Amino acid sequence: MRMLDLEAAGIGEGISEVIVTTKSAAGMPNAAPIGIITTVDDDGARTHQVKLYRGSQTLANVLETGTLAANVTTDAVLFVETAFDDLSAEYFTEFFGIPVLRKTTAWIIFTSELVEEKEVYLRFQLCPQAVKINRKEVKAINRGLNAVIEATVLATRLRISTEKREREEPRKELERYAAIVAKCGGWREREAMGMLKEKFLHGAE
Amino acid sequence: MRMLDLEAAGIGEGISEVIVTTKSAAGMPNAAPIGIITTVDDDGARTHQVKLYRGSQTLANVLETGTLAANVTTDAVLFVETAFDDLSAEYFTEFFGIPVLRKTTAWIIFTSELVEEKEVYLRFQLCPQAVKINRKEVKAINRGLNAVIEATVLATRLRISTEKREREEPRKELERYAAIVAKCGGWREREAMGMLKEKFLHGAE
Repeated sequence: MRMLDLEAAGIGEGISEVIVTTKSAAGMPNAAPIGIITTVDDDGARTHQVKLYRGSQTLANVLETGTLAANVTTDAVLFVETAFDDLSAEYFTEFFGIPVLRKTTAWIIFTSELVEEKEVYLRFQLCPQAVKINRKEVKAINRGLNAVIEATVLATRLRISTEKREREEPRKELERYAAIVAKCGGWREREAMGMLKEKFLHGAE
Repeated sequence: MRMLDLEAAGIGEGISEVIVTTKSAAGMPNAAPIGIITTVDDDGARTHQVKLYRGSQTLANVLETGTLAANVTTDAVLFVETAFDDLSAEYFTEFFGIPVLRKTTAWIIFTSELVEEKEVYLRFQLCPQAVKINRKEVKAINRGLNAVIEATVLATRLRISTEKREREEPRKELERYAAIVAKCGGWREREAMGMLKEKFLHGAE
């Protein structure tokens, strides 16, 4: 068996926040921000898993095709866009027949095997099939980028929860993230937070 | 004038969280986590600044030598170690006569010019003198790493604030960060959070 080095492609131990791309049986591409869960056992063997939420297009596609791609990126805007919108066709290219995002730094193709069914999600074991590193870089930690990711997680959860009374506290939390972005972010983080605030306020109506 | 590409070395627009290394006039090295503030004007010209807090060894050294090095890294443990402890000599090497950290991905040497004096900090304009990229990489976003950085910022502020009544809320916040590390972090993030919790509890006595 050929071993693929996912660590070099950015997928380390813990949860790697990536953009997962899939296609339907009919060939329609989809992209969504999802965490790849990597555990390392005592012998150093790595296991990759993913939880896909019921009702999501990613889950529907993975059930149809048994395949997904992890796109590694630190672009704040991509996380917000794929959390809320459908990306247009020009964002995508193909790698081993699977849609992937052109501007991301690495691609990993996984096949999936259903291992657990829960009320809100299905859990899959992932087996890496192909890896491509498009670009390596050096990037200092930016707290603005971190705040966009946390705010996206928050906004995604809010979309799932529909109770209005739950909205007051999250709104304050979003303001705290927005303040960190205003202080620490670059232009991509500011753009992402602007989009997120718009979605959030619109969604609250 | 030769232009140095700090973007390629990881220092983008906004605040780049790096480890700043300096030496005293007597040659003693020091390391501390500090944000390099990069602003881009309408013509695309970049300005780098740093705020150094009164009472810090970094400030004392910069006043003595007029020079500092930014070490770019995503190692959670390094941020916690340098926030609280003195690093032993084997962590350091030299680049253009300035102490830098061996294991970091890029080094930037800056000369400094004092531009503002405030009650709690002095602000310096930074001029890049030399850049070295040691290693490029691909790294997916990890919310555990982000949580360690936020928790380090929190713990550093607590050390400055001495009022005991202010400690209850931060302690809850630290627990929230610790929960994200436990869920999303890899072993470096778990190690860093373990160190941080120990420092925090010790410091609270």
